[in-house]
Amino acid sequence: MKATTEHTALVTGGSRETIKSKAHDYVVEEFNGLGAALSSITNLERACYLVDRRFSELHRAALELTVPPERAVYLEASEEQKSFDALTPVFLEVLKRGLKRDGVLVVIGGGVLQDIGCFIASVLFRGVRWELIPTTLLAQADSCIGSKSSINIGPYKNQIGTFYPPHRVLLVPAVLSTLPWDEVRSGLGEVIKLQLLTGEAGFRELMTDLKGFKGQTEILAKWTRRSMAVKQPYIEADEFDRGIRNLLNYGHTFGHAYESATHYGIPHGIAVILGMLTATYISMRLGQVPPAHYAELKALLQPWHQPFGEVLKKSPRDRIFQAIKHDKKNTGQTVNCILTRGFGRMEKRPVDFESDIVQNVGGFIDAELAS
Amino acid sequence: MKATTEHTALVTGGSRETIKSKAHDYVVEEFNGLGAALSSITNLERACYLVDRRFSELHRAALELTVPPERAVYLEASEEQKSFDALTPVFLEVLKRGLKRDGVLVVIGGGVLQDIGCFIASVLFRGVRWELIPTTLLAQADSCIGSKSSINIGPYKNQIGTFYPPHRVLLVPAVLSTLPWDEVRSGLGEVIKLQLLTGEAGFRELMTDLKGFKGQTEILAKWTRRSMAVKQPYIEADEFDRGIRNLLNYGHTFGHAYESATHYGIPHGIAVILGMLTATYISMRLGQVPPAHYAELKALLQPWHQPFGEVLKKSPRDRIFQAIKHDKKNTGQTVNCILTRGFGRMEKRPVDFESDIVQNVGGFIDAELAS
Repeated sequence: MKATTEHTALVTGGSRETIKSKAHDYVVEEFNGLGAALSSITNLERACYLVDRRFSELHRAALELTVPPERAVYLEASEEQKSFDALTPVFLEVLKRGLKRDGVLVVIGGGVLQDIGCFIASVLFRGVRWELIPTTLLAQADSCIGSKSSINIGPYKNQIGTFYPPHRVLLVPAVLSTLPWDEVRSGLGEVIKLQLLTGEAGFRELMTDLKGFKGQTEILAKWTRRSMAVKQPYIEADEFDRGIRNLLNYGHTFGHAYESATHYGIPHGIAVILGMLTATYISMRLGQVPPAHYAELKALLQPWHQPFGEVLKKSPRDRIFQAIKHDKKNTGQTVNCILTRGFGRMEKRPVDFESDIVQNVGGFIDAELAS
Repeated sequence: MKATTEHTALVTGGSRETIKSKAHDYVVEEFNGLGAALSSITNLERACYLVDRRFSELHRAALELTVPPERAVYLEASEEQKSFDALTPVFLEVLKRGLKRDGVLVVIGGGVLQDIGCFIASVLFRGVRWELIPTTLLAQADSCIGSKSSINIGPYKNQIGTFYPPHRVLLVPAVLSTLPWDEVRSGLGEVIKLQLLTGEAGFRELMTDLKGFKGQTEILAKWTRRSMAVKQPYIEADEFDRGIRNLLNYGHTFGHAYESATHYGIPHGIAVILGMLTATYISMRLGQVPPAHYAELKALLQPWHQPFGEVLKKSPRDRIFQAIKHDKKNTGQTVNCILTRGFGRMEKRPVDFESDIVQNVGGFIDAELAS
C-alpha cells in the first residue's frame, strides 16, 4: 500500500485530496496519462475491470498494456444497463473473471459505468474494494465524489442505489480530449452549477476562462479541481443527502424533468443549465432576484445550452409537468425546489405546483429560450 | 417518535436492548403478542408490509387488525425468491403500494424474508427505514441482529448482500408456538452454537433446560435473550465480519456444505449442529481437544440433529467436498475453519484441504453419525 502510494506520487506529481466518508475515506489523485493511472491500481494482480466499450475503443493502446482481456468486462454505457435485469449478467461475468472478496473492481467510464460499478462493488460480497477512472468531464468534475449509485427499476428511474464511494479516484484530465463537444458542455453544466453555488467571484472567473474555450484539457483540469473543492464540504457534511447537500440539486428538479420529457434527448448537464435558468426565472417571478440577475445569467449561459432549448420547446408540456410532479422528492401539491436569492445564495423552498410551477415553467420555456 | 416509544414500553413491559451499528443504532423490544407489536410500528400510516405467506395464514386475525391489504405484499419464503430476477416484481409491488422515502417497510417472517426485506430496504431510495418482526426461532435468537442480508445470483449462493440492520426489531416469542418441530430445532442449532462459544456454564444450563423440552415459548424466550447477549458484543465490535465476528461462523463452513450437498434437505441450524460436531471431530484429530470432549458433545447433541445425519450419509461425498472448497472464504488448498480447544475457546485456523479436511470429514460422516 505504502509502495503504491509513493509510486503514484512520483508518476503524477498531480494533486491529491482525501475525501471523508461514512463507508471509508478515499483519495482523489491526478495523473498525467491513462497508463500511469492504470499501473497505479492497488492490488493489480487481483483486479477485475469494468470498462466503457466506447472509451476502450478510443484508448485501446493504453488499456492493452495493463488490462488483461480475460479480466475485463466491456459494457455499453446506456440507461438500459442500469436495471437488475441487465446487471445480472454483468455480476456473473465479474464473478466468472475471478473477482474475489480481497480483489479490486476497477471501473473505467462515465456516469453510467460509475452507477453500475458502484452498485456492484457495494453489494458484491457485501462490499468489495473498487477504484474509479472517470472518463467524462461530468464524472471527473462532479459525480466521482459523493458516494452515490443509482439504478432503475421498471418505470422508476434512479430509485434504487447505495452510498459507497470508490476506495480511490484516479483522475486523468488528458482523456477528456476525446470527448464529443456536447459531452464537454454537459460536464460544464455541473461545473457552472457548483460555481453559482459558491459565489460571484468563482462564477465570473469561470465565465472568463470559458470565453473562446475550445475544450483545452488544462482548463478542464483546473475547473475539475475547483469543482471538487466546492462539492467536498457538502458531501462530507451531509453524505446521505438529508440536509445541506440538497443544495447540490440546484437546477435538477427541472433538469431531470427536461431529460425525462425529451426521452434523454438533452444531455444531463445541459438539462441542468436549463433547469438552473428555470429556477432563476421562478426566483425572479417570486421576487427573490432582480430581473437584471436573471437576464445576465440567461445571456451568459445561452452558448452552453443552445440548441437544446429548442428540443425542450418541442417537447409536450404535459410530459414535463408530469415528470416534475413525480420527482421522488415531491409530495402532493408542493414541489421542493432549490431557488436562488443571487450568487452563492441558493435555498430549498416548497413552492405550489399549480400556481408557481405550471405557470412559470411554461412561461420560461415559451418566452425565454432564444432560438 | 417519543410518543411511540413510551407507548411501546407500556404495552410490553418486555426487555429492551439497544444495538450499535455503523448504519444506525437500533432497538430490540419484546412484546407479549403480535397485535401489540404491530400497533407499535413507527409511522404506521406510512408503512408497507412484506409478509411471509405461510405465517400470514397462521396469524390472519392479528394481521387483519393492523395490516391494510392494499399495503401488504405476501411472499413465499423460498431460496428462489432471493435473486434479482425474483426480487424485481417485489420491489415494484412495494413501490406500487406507495412506499415513500419517509415511510417504513415492515418485514414479518423468518430468515428468507429478512434477507429480502433487508436488501430491499438497504437499496430502495438508497436506504429506507425498516422494522422487523422475526417469526422463527432462528431469526429471533440469531439473524435479527447483525445487519446482514444475503442474495443469490446464478449458481452463486449468498454472494450479494448489504449491511443494513432494521431500525427496530420487534420480538414476539408467542408466535414461535406455531413453528414446526424441525424449525424449532434449526433455531436451537444457533442457540447451542452461541452457548458453546461463550463457555461451559451457559452450555450446561441450556442442556439442562432442553431436557424434556417440548417447545415451551418461555424457554425459547429465555434462550433468545441469552443468545442475543452472546452475539451482541461480536457484531458491535466487528459489524463487517473482518475479524472476531468470524467466530460466529463456528460450524458454518461444514454446515453450509452439508446444506448445499443435500439440496437444502437439512434445515440450516441443524446443518450447523452437524458442522460443529465435524469441527470438534477435526479439532480432536488435530489434538486440540481430548476425545472425551468430542464424545460428550456427540452424545448431548444427537437428539437435536437426528435423523439428518442419515440424510448427510446418503449424500454424494464429492458434492460435500466441492462445496467446502468453493466456500467464499477459502483460497486454494487451504480452508479457513473455526476449530475449538474446548468450551468458549474457538479459534480461526487454516487447515489443509487434502490432508485435514477430506480424510476427517469422511471419517466423521462414515463412522460417527449414529443411526
